[in-house]
Amino acid sequence: MAQKPSIPKGTRDFSPAEVAKRNYIFGKIKSQFKNFGFQPIETPSFENSDTLMGKYGEEGDRLIFKILNSGDFLKKADEKLLQEKDSLKITSSISEKALRYDLTVPFARYVVQHQNEIDFPFKRYQIQPVWRADRPQKGRFREFFQCDADVVGSKSLWQEVEFVQLYDAVFDSLGLKGVTIKLNNRKVLSGFAEVIGEQDKLIDFTVALDKLDKIGEEGVKKEMREKGIAEIALEKIQPIFNLQGDFGQKIQGIKDILATSEIGKAGIAELEFIEKAIAAIPLKSAKLELDVTLARGLNYYTGAIFEVAAPEGVKMGSIGGGGRYDDLTGIFGLKDMSGVGISFGLDRIYLVLEELGLFPETVTENTRVLFINFGEEEALYALKVISELRRNKIVAELYPDAAKMNKQMKYADKREIPFVVLAGGEEMQQEKFTLKNMKTGEQYTISATELMEKIS
Amino acid sequence: MAQKPSIPKGTRDFSPAEVAKRNYIFGKIKSQFKNFGFQPIETPSFENSDTLMGKYGEEGDRLIFKILNSGDFLKKADEKLLQEKDSLKITSSISEKALRYDLTVPFARYVVQHQNEIDFPFKRYQIQPVWRADRPQKGRFREFFQCDADVVGSKSLWQEVEFVQLYDAVFDSLGLKGVTIKLNNRKVLSGFAEVIGEQDKLIDFTVALDKLDKIGEEGVKKEMREKGIAEIALEKIQPIFNLQGDFGQKIQGIKDILATSEIGKAGIAELEFIEKAIAAIPLKSAKLELDVTLARGLNYYTGAIFEVAAPEGVKMGSIGGGGRYDDLTGIFGLKDMSGVGISFGLDRIYLVLEELGLFPETVTENTRVLFINFGEEEALYALKVISELRRNKIVAELYPDAAKMNKQMKYADKREIPFVVLAGGEEMQQEKFTLKNMKTGEQYTISATELMEKIS
Repeated sequence: MAQKPSIPKGTRDFSPAEVAKRNYIFGKIKSQFKNFGFQPIETPSFENSDTLMGKYGEEGDRLIFKILNSGDFLKKADEKLLQEKDSLKITSSISEKALRYDLTVPFARYVVQHQNEIDFPFKRYQIQPVWRADRPQKGRFREFFQCDADVVGSKSLWQEVEFVQLYDAVFDSLGLKGVTIKLNNRKVLSGFAEVIGEQDKLIDFTVALDKLDKIGEEGVKKEMREKGIAEIALEKIQPIFNLQGDFGQKIQGIKDILATSEIGKAGIAELEFIEKAIAAIPLKSAKLELDVTLARGLNYYTGAIFEVAAPEGVKMGSIGGGGRYDDLTGIFGLKDMSGVGISFGLDRIYLVLEELGLFPETVTENTRVLFINFGEEEALYALKVISELRRNKIVAELYPDAAKMNKQMKYADKREIPFVVLAGGEEMQQEKFTLKNMKTGEQYTISATELMEKIS
Repeated sequence: MAQKPSIPKGTRDFSPAEVAKRNYIFGKIKSQFKNFGFQPIETPSFENSDTLMGKYGEEGDRLIFKILNSGDFLKKADEKLLQEKDSLKITSSISEKALRYDLTVPFARYVVQHQNEIDFPFKRYQIQPVWRADRPQKGRFREFFQCDADVVGSKSLWQEVEFVQLYDAVFDSLGLKGVTIKLNNRKVLSGFAEVIGEQDKLIDFTVALDKLDKIGEEGVKKEMREKGIAEIALEKIQPIFNLQGDFGQKIQGIKDILATSEIGKAGIAELEFIEKAIAAIPLKSAKLELDVTLARGLNYYTGAIFEVAAPEGVKMGSIGGGGRYDDLTGIFGLKDMSGVGISFGLDRIYLVLEELGLFPETVTENTRVLFINFGEEEALYALKVISELRRNKIVAELYPDAAKMNKQMKYADKREIPFVVLAGGEEMQQEKFTLKNMKTGEQYTISATELMEKIS
């Protein structure tokens, strides 16, 4: 192989600094997941195809990575489909496994499969990669991590309250103050469709409404008209476009519209419950906002819908989202299991922290002290102290070769190692070490104990 | 889907307790990797097929999971091969990507691809899953994690010394005392083949020798005879079977055999260097042993060969292994990059810790206190304290529904939550909480501050 090797498009290598920063975010999320009583599970990277296929719509099925059966896979393949070169239909006979597309379906499968071992309500978190054969774009990858927390087995609205608190706790702990947690409710959206007499156009209606901040009021109305929503219906919901003020004021605004819709009123009651609890136990630094245009793949959610926006001034799509789905495990035959969950968008959170300079400097710090290698005797002398330092959790390294001093110093410099120790024959005789502070240039000849103190 | 869902054979779901135990091991390994100055990288789960194919031998190629191309993959497939149903040959035209088979080849690819960003010597660690289409067996899975640490870009034997120390540090920190780190050197094996005049049978010779603890001296000799190794050669190496005593004594034993082999003597010198350094800086709890039968996929290694055995009395294959390979990156066109590395066998380490009862009890501890839910007002009252507890890193949960007291208590019991708080109208009036210790059954009615103290 003469040419430089590469990786598949849409995938990434992560350098030590990138891994360190990603782990910093994972660590903060995990720590709050734990704090809130969520427990980790892990599922296999690939599932049986029939577990995944048909769960994400036609488009989703296309985007699932399929794994070729091992061995003589064509033997079992349908002769006719082969001759017709029908790629789509032949797939199921030459591929029985597929890479995880998200964490929600595998979680539902897990819950059903292990229902007898689980104590419900089950609060689980899961942080694992997923794969999608999407066209790669800036910020869109074919392999990326999802960080999900879900509760299954309870319809209680306290879960929704806790998820708002959880978002607040995670972003606050990342130093990302001022995020907006947008809240909506599927029942409110259903209520809108009901009062305007367009229940059958609920999807079209909400898909259009969801675009309000992208295409504006006129754009939304234009799209609604194109989908056949009557002018009189648009007039009826006009107040939606004029909602102003805080959470409570907006609620008042939609109460008038939804006065005649039972489902709409149920949605409002849920929103009010959550808002009241959050008002009683103030958030640390996030703000909770009502956004009646929020839909997020509406077909999925049955109650609360969440989405988190980065602090004002940062241009970035949502950095988190989630909601309630009343029938999580029905697809696998276990009825009446309501679930509610949220997700964190790792890659976007990473970009936001980078943009705002919120990664602590210490995150990418690694080796604290490099011992220059002057030869076998000296290296052994160094290695004794290095072992001691490591025992005390101070990251210490010996330069492996007795290379030229200049080369070794350059290595320390490039790797931004803050301290270098030089210990040659003279130091060994005195049982001392010469310590150099690479930033200030200061040098001291000191004992092992003093060395330990100086650099810890 | 009526029947209970399942997962592909050879894969596993991990429950919260299992994830916690696995993370405990990962944490200890990572912590020592870091301490020794290794930096983490991550590579994509799938690579371009030509990065992986042909790197693991014919058997390896067969065991690599291939990913089916997206879209109309048959369009590009060779017509003739399709008609002939030649699964093997058609693969490369319908699959361009494959799942990682190990971490070493992707690491080599990473080093070559990023050579201009890396400061050599490069000490990297990598903890990621790999996939093999092996026949699943007890303890052998199709998806499993590898934990590797390697140094690339230095031929220094100090690396080997440090890897011995690293093994010792990791197993000691896991409480797994008394592991044996077996050491050998490819040059010693080459020397044996040389002095018996069977260089061309080096592989046969070492494959047979490697089985000594399984099939015994007579078994090894029988296999060697079958492979055409002469009787006189067997006589010459007879001392190998009679090696006794400590590291130094065994070295003496092979020195006589290898007296006429330059390469053999070079191997001995390397072994002695490592042993001398380790003797000068004693290991914490592992012991270093010379095992001249150790080969471990010999073709790969060029110098040191490591393998770790569990403490005596535990029946388990090797729990770690590694070695030096002088041409790590040559397959991708970058010459003269010597590498040396070690690996930890997570699944086996897990089983050993389980067998010896070495997982600390706290590992699987999660929620510390459950607040019983008596209704809306009470739940809000509880949630205020819960927020406070979480801020202080005490894992607290509110039972989500105002279910029957009995059901809630049972839930706490099943999940082994050590404390339960009951706070109804009376407690609220007094601004108190009734705390129940689930183990002792003791109950106290106390303030929020006292509560915090009591359970932390």
